Amino acid sequence: MTDLRINPDRMLRNLAQLSEFGATGDGGVHRPALSETHLAARVWLCAKLEAAGLEFFTDAAGNHFGRLACGPDGAASLLIGSHLDSVPHGGRFDGALGVVAGLEVLETIRDTGLDLACHLEVVDFTDEEGTLVGLLGSRALAGALTPADLENPRGGREALADGFARAGITDPTAAARDPNTLAGYLELHIEQGPRLTAAQAAIGIVTALVGIGSFALAFRGRADHAGTTPMDARRDAGLGAAQLMVRAHDHVVSDYPGAVINFGQAEFLPGAYNIVPETASISLEYRAESQDRLNALERDLLDIAQETAAIFNLQLETHPQGCVAPAPCSPVVRSAFAAACETLDLKSMDLVSGAGHDTQAMTSVCPAGMIFIPSAGGSHNPDEFAESEDCENGANVLLHTALTLAAKGDF
Amino acid sequence: MTDLRINPDRMLRNLAQLSEFGATGDGGVHRPALSETHLAARVWLCAKLEAAGLEFFTDAAGNHFGRLACGPDGAASLLIGSHLDSVPHGGRFDGALGVVAGLEVLETIRDTGLDLACHLEVVDFTDEEGTLVGLLGSRALAGALTPADLENPRGGREALADGFARAGITDPTAAARDPNTLAGYLELHIEQGPRLTAAQAAIGIVTALVGIGSFALAFRGRADHAGTTPMDARRDAGLGAAQLMVRAHDHVVSDYPGAVINFGQAEFLPGAYNIVPETASISLEYRAESQDRLNALERDLLDIAQETAAIFNLQLETHPQGCVAPAPCSPVVRSAFAAACETLDLKSMDLVSGAGHDTQAMTSVCPAGMIFIPSAGGSHNPDEFAESEDCENGANVLLHTALTLAAKGDF
Repeated sequence: MTDLRINPDRMLRNLAQLSEFGATGDGGVHRPALSETHLAARVWLCAKLEAAGLEFFTDAAGNHFGRLACGPDGAASLLIGSHLDSVPHGGRFDGALGVVAGLEVLETIRDTGLDLACHLEVVDFTDEEGTLVGLLGSRALAGALTPADLENPRGGREALADGFARAGITDPTAAARDPNTLAGYLELHIEQGPRLTAAQAAIGIVTALVGIGSFALAFRGRADHAGTTPMDARRDAGLGAAQLMVRAHDHVVSDYPGAVINFGQAEFLPGAYNIVPETASISLEYRAESQDRLNALERDLLDIAQETAAIFNLQLETHPQGCVAPAPCSPVVRSAFAAACETLDLKSMDLVSGAGHDTQAMTSVCPAGMIFIPSAGGSHNPDEFAESEDCENGANVLLHTALTLAAKGDF
Repeated sequence: MTDLRINPDRMLRNLAQLSEFGATGDGGVHRPALSETHLAARVWLCAKLEAAGLEFFTDAAGNHFGRLACGPDGAASLLIGSHLDSVPHGGRFDGALGVVAGLEVLETIRDTGLDLACHLEVVDFTDEEGTLVGLLGSRALAGALTPADLENPRGGREALADGFARAGITDPTAAARDPNTLAGYLELHIEQGPRLTAAQAAIGIVTALVGIGSFALAFRGRADHAGTTPMDARRDAGLGAAQLMVRAHDHVVSDYPGAVINFGQAEFLPGAYNIVPETASISLEYRAESQDRLNALERDLLDIAQETAAIFNLQLETHPQGCVAPAPCSPVVRSAFAAACETLDLKSMDLVSGAGHDTQAMTSVCPAGMIFIPSAGGSHNPDEFAESEDCENGANVLLHTALTLAAKGDF
């Protein structure tokens, strides 16, 4: 089986057809979860799955599946997939590539007529991007979606209700699947970052998906007249916020290599040229690959913020804004990815995923792992781009990993 | 005349009466320029001036004058005053004290029956605070107000037109007064800062009113995914802005003692927790007491901003937002203030005014100077406060300075 390869033309033709759904005319797609364009893409997928001779079904969360019954009766399934929804005005590779690659792997194995130790399923998860909730389908399948998650959805309750009505979804939490039916989960995705290209590697093997913490921070000082108040008599909230941003950045770069932080929002009040800022509100987000490191990073960042507040005689308010636990990928799956890269003579490297993906939810219920291929043009915009050869390489790694793991059935 | 003193009870009673116009119930006043409350205060002033036996008149800018004809026919006038308008929800001392003190000085000198070498006039200038235009009345009198100043007023064209209609003002530029009729200008004001209190000085003799420069700055980088983009691969506009704020602050404190800067506004775009800021817009204002120092400061600040942009691989846009030239006070007037403080045994100190005042406009047409008395509770808010004894001291310094200068007539 070492010489087996996916059919790149078939896969890329499918990707191109899929790109027509919600096409924005500039290479991108607009397929927010459960929008008309997203649901149209799913109708297309359903037809493709059935034409491929796969057993098509959906679950209570709207997740779409195509099953190749290549294992013994009652065996679990190795799932391979990603998602067809996009961010608003996003790119055509994010998510869609993982679904068409999963389909391609199943078609390739179907054509061999092989009997394996488990079944294979290609899966298209609902609302990975969070237009509505975020990882809605994969968390529902993993039994991690709660009614509370649906009460204050990111996209608003009305949009969620509208989407559910369009898709015929009533209670997505009912999609929780018996873990005994899950042999594992594999996902192919574009990197959405520059590391593979910089390292000239064809495949990135994800060691873990980062945990994410976030705070709304507010420094409070005094709104003095900026002309009559000497520099040393001020309580300048803006200066405190600026100092924190600089110090936190330097600290993370020096003491937390690989981790990232971001201050994405800033507002000074009262907000006049000639008034020293009384309040400086900034948003802090930080990501690290392990819970220990995430905790240490949070402690350090809040310590620096408190020290900075003290230096400038400011009050500091810290409001947690939600967090995501780090998700380590399965060592067995990682080893199988690495072996496949060796079989295919592809240079691979281990890396941490700085973004969330459906794999994040799946790690809690079965051995799960994901690979990245190089991409350019940034992320979540119409310019995102992956070379056809890289897409092909990624799908072939999925293929040989699936063959290895499905031959075992339980890993 | 060394023993002559103003009548503190009369002056403070006037100040208390004036505080009723636009009283906000918390010790402050709301008397925006040419509002109903401001115009009511002016009606009160008019009655006071006439009751004091002064010759009342107004000019084309709505400035109010009360004249004591104590000099020879055809002599110029030494003006003493300030303004009755306040910032919205401001304090009861800012401006009003200078007007009632001017009136008190004229009443005191009137009672002596002295003949002097020039006349005396108490003046209440229109719109010092800039609710409409800023230094409107004093610049008009000094011939420095242009039609262009009235085309895009700070407070908007509609508010200006409404105010002019209420006050019966049609063309304030016609208020330009023959400089030969101006012997000089004196102003008493609260400090609006902590320096006199810190130095335990009773009187601050203003050496110059600062010049002010301002820029809207925009750093532009790239809006990357804050999870997938490593720290060293970013072009983080927010980090550039933060670094500039910190560096500029440190530079001014170390290299420009006495000068001040302020970053009063900040906005990061696109403004999401998980997106590296593409644009960071901040406002910069800086003040220094001489044109040379103001120019050097501007050059240094823009150099630091450019350096910072280069370090973080950002573009920098700099949009000038208007400037005010520094206004040195008359050495003759300053000497007369100092001599008066000595006569009255009051500790004085030289200081720079970090804020603009009507004196700023008057320095361009006649020998002008101003003094500060200690104040607490900040500035431009209902808590601003000056002790009665300090108000009395300030008025007595005005009195003896006026006696000295008006005895010369031309200085």
